[in-house]
Amino acid sequence: MQSKYHFYTIIMKKQKKFVLTDDQVPTQWYNIQADMPNKPLPILNPATREPLTVDEMSHIFARECCVQELDQEHRWIDIPQEVLEKYRFYRSTPLVRAYELEKALGTTAHIYFKNESTNPLGSHKINSALPQCYYCREEGTTNVTTETGAGQWGAALSYAAKIFGLDAAVFQVRISMSQKPYRSSIMRTFGAVVTGSPSMSTRAGKDILTVDPQHPGSLGTAISEAVELATQTPNCKYTLGSVLNHVSLHQTVIGLEAEKQMEMAGEYPDVVIGCFGGGSNFSGIAFPFMRHTFSGEHPNTRFIAAEPDSCPKLTRGVFHYDFGDEAGLTPLLPMFTLGHSFKPANIHAGGLRYHGAGTIVSQLLKDGYMTGVDIPQLESFEAGMLFARTEGIIPAPESCHAIAAAIREANDATAKGEERVILFNLSGHGLIDMTAYEQYINGDLQNYSLSSETIAANTHDLP
Amino acid sequence: MQSKYHFYTIIMKKQKKFVLTDDQVPTQWYNIQADMPNKPLPILNPATREPLTVDEMSHIFARECCVQELDQEHRWIDIPQEVLEKYRFYRSTPLVRAYELEKALGTTAHIYFKNESTNPLGSHKINSALPQCYYCREEGTTNVTTETGAGQWGAALSYAAKIFGLDAAVFQVRISMSQKPYRSSIMRTFGAVVTGSPSMSTRAGKDILTVDPQHPGSLGTAISEAVELATQTPNCKYTLGSVLNHVSLHQTVIGLEAEKQMEMAGEYPDVVIGCFGGGSNFSGIAFPFMRHTFSGEHPNTRFIAAEPDSCPKLTRGVFHYDFGDEAGLTPLLPMFTLGHSFKPANIHAGGLRYHGAGTIVSQLLKDGYMTGVDIPQLESFEAGMLFARTEGIIPAPESCHAIAAAIREANDATAKGEERVILFNLSGHGLIDMTAYEQYINGDLQNYSLSSETIAANTHDLP
Repeated sequence: MQSKYHFYTIIMKKQKKFVLTDDQVPTQWYNIQADMPNKPLPILNPATREPLTVDEMSHIFARECCVQELDQEHRWIDIPQEVLEKYRFYRSTPLVRAYELEKALGTTAHIYFKNESTNPLGSHKINSALPQCYYCREEGTTNVTTETGAGQWGAALSYAAKIFGLDAAVFQVRISMSQKPYRSSIMRTFGAVVTGSPSMSTRAGKDILTVDPQHPGSLGTAISEAVELATQTPNCKYTLGSVLNHVSLHQTVIGLEAEKQMEMAGEYPDVVIGCFGGGSNFSGIAFPFMRHTFSGEHPNTRFIAAEPDSCPKLTRGVFHYDFGDEAGLTPLLPMFTLGHSFKPANIHAGGLRYHGAGTIVSQLLKDGYMTGVDIPQLESFEAGMLFARTEGIIPAPESCHAIAAAIREANDATAKGEERVILFNLSGHGLIDMTAYEQYINGDLQNYSLSSETIAANTHDLP
Repeated sequence: MQSKYHFYTIIMKKQKKFVLTDDQVPTQWYNIQADMPNKPLPILNPATREPLTVDEMSHIFARECCVQELDQEHRWIDIPQEVLEKYRFYRSTPLVRAYELEKALGTTAHIYFKNESTNPLGSHKINSALPQCYYCREEGTTNVTTETGAGQWGAALSYAAKIFGLDAAVFQVRISMSQKPYRSSIMRTFGAVVTGSPSMSTRAGKDILTVDPQHPGSLGTAISEAVELATQTPNCKYTLGSVLNHVSLHQTVIGLEAEKQMEMAGEYPDVVIGCFGGGSNFSGIAFPFMRHTFSGEHPNTRFIAAEPDSCPKLTRGVFHYDFGDEAGLTPLLPMFTLGHSFKPANIHAGGLRYHGAGTIVSQLLKDGYMTGVDIPQLESFEAGMLFARTEGIIPAPESCHAIAAAIREANDATAKGEERVILFNLSGHGLIDMTAYEQYINGDLQNYSLSSETIAANTHDLP
């Protein structure tokens, strides 16, 4: 017994969890646009094909968000005091060394994850929901609309709207709504009105259902409906949970914290990984580290975005101007895209079922600062199960993609005998996604292969 | 704008969240038995009606747990090093000043809550699951069984068993299993075998179903089945998530942390509140503070256990020896009880559907050191909704009872113009209980009144 206790004393010296004190939590967001060697191409007004202005954009979004969207100058943006106060309810989030996962893999790699699942909404989405609602309230807006896939963003937005005194209307992707009914209840508990998309309550929804009455919905259809409602409701703005630059900006609190925490751990990541839908959590973990790539201080860090192989815009999409939504109501974005009419397979990672990548990430991918990997659904859940049984946290199906990519990297490092330092973002927990795990355990899930013909068919006539 | 920012700077000085550093986390549990003026009456062997010995009890439980169960001498019990290491994955948990709830109530009271919902299992139950599985493994046990109501304990036990390399079999109350299907999936994700109780897989289950084929199950039926399986399986022990003294002992980490955190906040509670099923989370938050009542240092602190009015053993039960389970397989416990054959109404707070109170709590209640309050189901959810919309955390239906009791206290303080300091334990989150919230929002929930005749009928011939 004596020797065993001695052993565990040694184990405890290997610190597992790194937490910042309140005064170490970042007070500014990092605007990567200021440092990018090639700036993102401009967002275009589809009617004129001229670069979109803050004035045009702020018909839909809070004005301050539009200013941030187009800001290519200021490297650091102050987080408003009141947002900072709300952040501190749940931030900093822990950085964790995944010793148990490492042991199960028998790997020579060091695996760290940033745990964004610890807040009461269960994902990183709250990091942008709070400032967006704050700016809306400051500008006199009373109502907000949004889209949501799996419901992580919708839940965060509903809560943020409630605490800033706004009324929220959420369009949730129909297939996700039936896969994860609890998420709609969470939004309603916070007081939001929730509608499945495509719905008959908007012109865009009616048009989509006319063509395909069984349309399962996608982030693209839900965005169309939410934007339409925002433009037709007095004193109402639209909010978005991913894709756009200002959303990525708000999410940089993740990476800025992680940077300080990795310092506490005495290591710097060789690889930084996030799962990828529209880009918000990937950007959040990656951008702050990427500034040291630009500066030459850490030129060899690799940045990997893990997407589902059934929705592979980064690895198999084309770089082109495209609409952000299915109905073509948004401005034109320069993006890696599968085409705005692409219908993703009904995988459980609802947050990754989106046809395009944000403009910043698209430019970074084009310039070789990052790469994409595509993960089959079964591999993602296999990774999620191993993570749950070792680290004790059931990950969101989206986050399972990041874990799978981290495991691939760890196994590669082991094969090469390298002590590779891997950092991934655990974007959320999967407690509302237990149906998916139940199906995986019962052998009822499948992979969805995507033919080159399907991709070509959806991308041959982009706007 | 300037003055607004100034305002929020002031707000931030009112600290909301109190967190301990790793070296402040307790390394010992507090054994209240050592300090009680009147010790609890002995647990009896039902055959001989003689006090149960460690040897007899350890046929069912890990031996170290039995030693702790009967220990009335040692005030402080060392937490094993390896358990401490696992605790530190998720502890300390935050103590939070509920400023937003206070504001919504317009109260003069100061409301604090200890947030035990922040670990990946979502409730305080993990605090005892870890040491119980640790002791089992140390003693050479390979299999563990248990019962679970809402599934919070079952989920915690399944995870703890997995990380200590044990196989787990969980009997889940049938009605709770159908109300909260995700919890069974969580247990299966951690590798446990889950069976609805009453089941046909045990003698006890068959007997119960023979009398009442529609029996919805209760903690009492599930305990009967789990104990039977443990006694009939080689190298297998039973584990319990509440009621017993060693479980309460393990949960004292909650109150010991809260004590230090209240010190950081510069206040001492006038009232300490926990919801009450078998007593584990109430004991955890209350016992460490109660030692200052015994010592005379804080003689006037009130301790309130909040139970459902449909299962009111503290407020309307009798103090008597009774079985801990429905089938009468356990030793005889001196308890406030509604009778071991009492069938609680199908309220959503599955963890509170238990007929009796632990021996320590029963003695403390008898001696006037604490009181019970009974909360109707609708009042509990009304409190939970207000809490979600102010503090951003959707509470477990069980925890809603503690919140309701805290709101009653706050309103009473306001009426009297008192700056009363209220501390309650938020035992878990309600993300797996969204069906209940959905029903509440839709007006589909009800109260369950309980007649004195029903209580008398179940308690007139106790053993």
